Amino acid sequence: MSAEATGAELLLDEIREQPAAWRRLLDHEEEIAALGQRLAAERPSLVRFAAHGTSDHAATYAMYALRLLCGWTILRDSMSLSLSYGAATATPGELAVGLSQSGETPDVVAWLHAARAAGATAVAVTNAGDSSLARGADGVLPLAAGPERSIAATKTYTCTLAALALLGAHAAGPERGAALASALRGTADLAEEALPRLERAVEPIADVLSSVERLYAVARGLELATAAEVALKLTEIAYVAAKALTATSMAHGPVAALDRSFPVWAVAGDEATLPAVAEAVRRARDAGAPVITTGPEAAALDGATFTLATPHAPDPLLSPLLSVLPGQLFARTLALAKGIDPGAPRHLRKVTLAA
Amino acid sequence: MSAEATGAELLLDEIREQPAAWRRLLDHEEEIAALGQRLAAERPSLVRFAAHGTSDHAATYAMYALRLLCGWTILRDSMSLSLSYGAATATPGELAVGLSQSGETPDVVAWLHAARAAGATAVAVTNAGDSSLARGADGVLPLAAGPERSIAATKTYTCTLAALALLGAHAAGPERGAALASALRGTADLAEEALPRLERAVEPIADVLSSVERLYAVARGLELATAAEVALKLTEIAYVAAKALTATSMAHGPVAALDRSFPVWAVAGDEATLPAVAEAVRRARDAGAPVITTGPEAAALDGATFTLATPHAPDPLLSPLLSVLPGQLFARTLALAKGIDPGAPRHLRKVTLAA
Repeated sequence: MSAEATGAELLLDEIREQPAAWRRLLDHEEEIAALGQRLAAERPSLVRFAAHGTSDHAATYAMYALRLLCGWTILRDSMSLSLSYGAATATPGELAVGLSQSGETPDVVAWLHAARAAGATAVAVTNAGDSSLARGADGVLPLAAGPERSIAATKTYTCTLAALALLGAHAAGPERGAALASALRGTADLAEEALPRLERAVEPIADVLSSVERLYAVARGLELATAAEVALKLTEIAYVAAKALTATSMAHGPVAALDRSFPVWAVAGDEATLPAVAEAVRRARDAGAPVITTGPEAAALDGATFTLATPHAPDPLLSPLLSVLPGQLFARTLALAKGIDPGAPRHLRKVTLAA
Repeated sequence: MSAEATGAELLLDEIREQPAAWRRLLDHEEEIAALGQRLAAERPSLVRFAAHGTSDHAATYAMYALRLLCGWTILRDSMSLSLSYGAATATPGELAVGLSQSGETPDVVAWLHAARAAGATAVAVTNAGDSSLARGADGVLPLAAGPERSIAATKTYTCTLAALALLGAHAAGPERGAALASALRGTADLAEEALPRLERAVEPIADVLSSVERLYAVARGLELATAAEVALKLTEIAYVAAKALTATSMAHGPVAALDRSFPVWAVAGDEATLPAVAEAVRRARDAGAPVITTGPEAAALDGATFTLATPHAPDPLLSPLLSVLPGQLFARTLALAKGIDPGAPRHLRKVTLAA
């Protein structure tokens, strides 16, 4: 087996493993429920999140999901305000949540420790329970993703979404928690069914788009995290200059750059945000851009060049676990079509220790 | 004069007009001071911002500048939480700030009205005092930019930064307000001096990079807004797939896509954030990418392919008014080098009325 095939197979194995990883997370439900109940009892006045990259996209998801699940107000905090400018941000009565799959991202670790020192309750969301991030926290939300060997995060991303949703549901109460856990089991079943179909469906699209170097991923609301994550996968695995935009923001300037070699990946997650996504698709098509529509409401969008619909999750808040799958698979297949090893992107290491 | 020359000249006129526009804003200082004092007296528990595009980048600036000037905690709010999902976000005791140069961006108008109905104090930041946004607000922060005829916002962007800084300084007290106003006058003088030099300096860089279609703009802290705005100018005026990243996030995946045809625009704003920007520049050079360094600390960065240093502002919080100038000028000049009319980007209208 060639080195390329090995890297590509490894990434595919981890994409395929996701439903099993979500089920493993459910083995930790009791621990997550206890953490959610404890945090809810504190009635946090504000919940601050800090992260980079894939973990930051999970924080985008949390902004919507935790507000809708348990009413928390989420603030995406600036790490440099406290770390570079010496301006304390967190205060007592607040909750500070630092996300890092490795638990060793230096500024996230420093930010969480500073927030705790300032009196906030500190929670680490990490795949490494014995990491620096976990050791400096009042509570740890486990991901239970198991070792992730590909440089590009896939199962740790969806496990982070699932863990945050479980936490928020249990913070809302035991009944909501149990219902969410049951919906997560159903979502894993749906993913397992859908993956083989999606694996086949991305191949002809990657062939047609194999010369693509620029792309926008658009969504609005709960699926904005999906757009951000798909853009990052396409960038780090297939070297596409891919940018995520809210469907509405695309009209505020970026639409000008579109042309027939600059596609748009549109995620249609729910009826509430469908009009904004439909308008973005219309504008992209008017600009001559190929459009790939994905998500559970993909079929409701007119004018798509390609469609990769995903199942409706039993709980709509879990939809982003399914909506990201076509993007993960497409990024891998596009890399192969471009002659890139998707298992070992250049210039990257698994644990990022940048300043 | 050809249509292209007209559009290009109009945009250049508006870029050059910025120092005069900032001075015009100072004619409104009394009104801005009164608003700042009134809002400070309310001691807002949380300040929510909502905007799209260029105005959203001004909100990024506010997150840093207003925390540092008057201690406010800024939350970049989700408009879809309240407008699409029916989840009230604002509450009494909070301040809600909607930014729209035209004052007619539909979801920003609806979001601000909803926040006011929920009991928050509503402030409109707009260049149109008789707009829907202004009419539904408890207070209006004027921009005094005068009519902006180019589709790409330049003077309305820097006037928004200046107005927010003046507001925050007066919220901190009359002495801080007067000092900031004086520093703004000095910043206008520095911009007037620097603009002719920068206009000449961007030309050879645009010639060398005239085939560029992908770019990252990186910064950290206060200048993150500058990176976002430069990326948007390059996208809407020169059709570059340009993405802004925090200098640290670039290492979390995006660095993989860099190569010799994919440059990095690095903004070095202050010593506090210099290590993160220097690390990003080092990684970009290791990946073979051309690097353009800008900002007042540009000279402190090693390894630049091109350098476009800007003056140190009399108050470091006003540095972003100067740091964005090379990006505005480069976007225009790059468009001309690519044969694009920078005064009339395709697929865009001045006032965006998208869903």
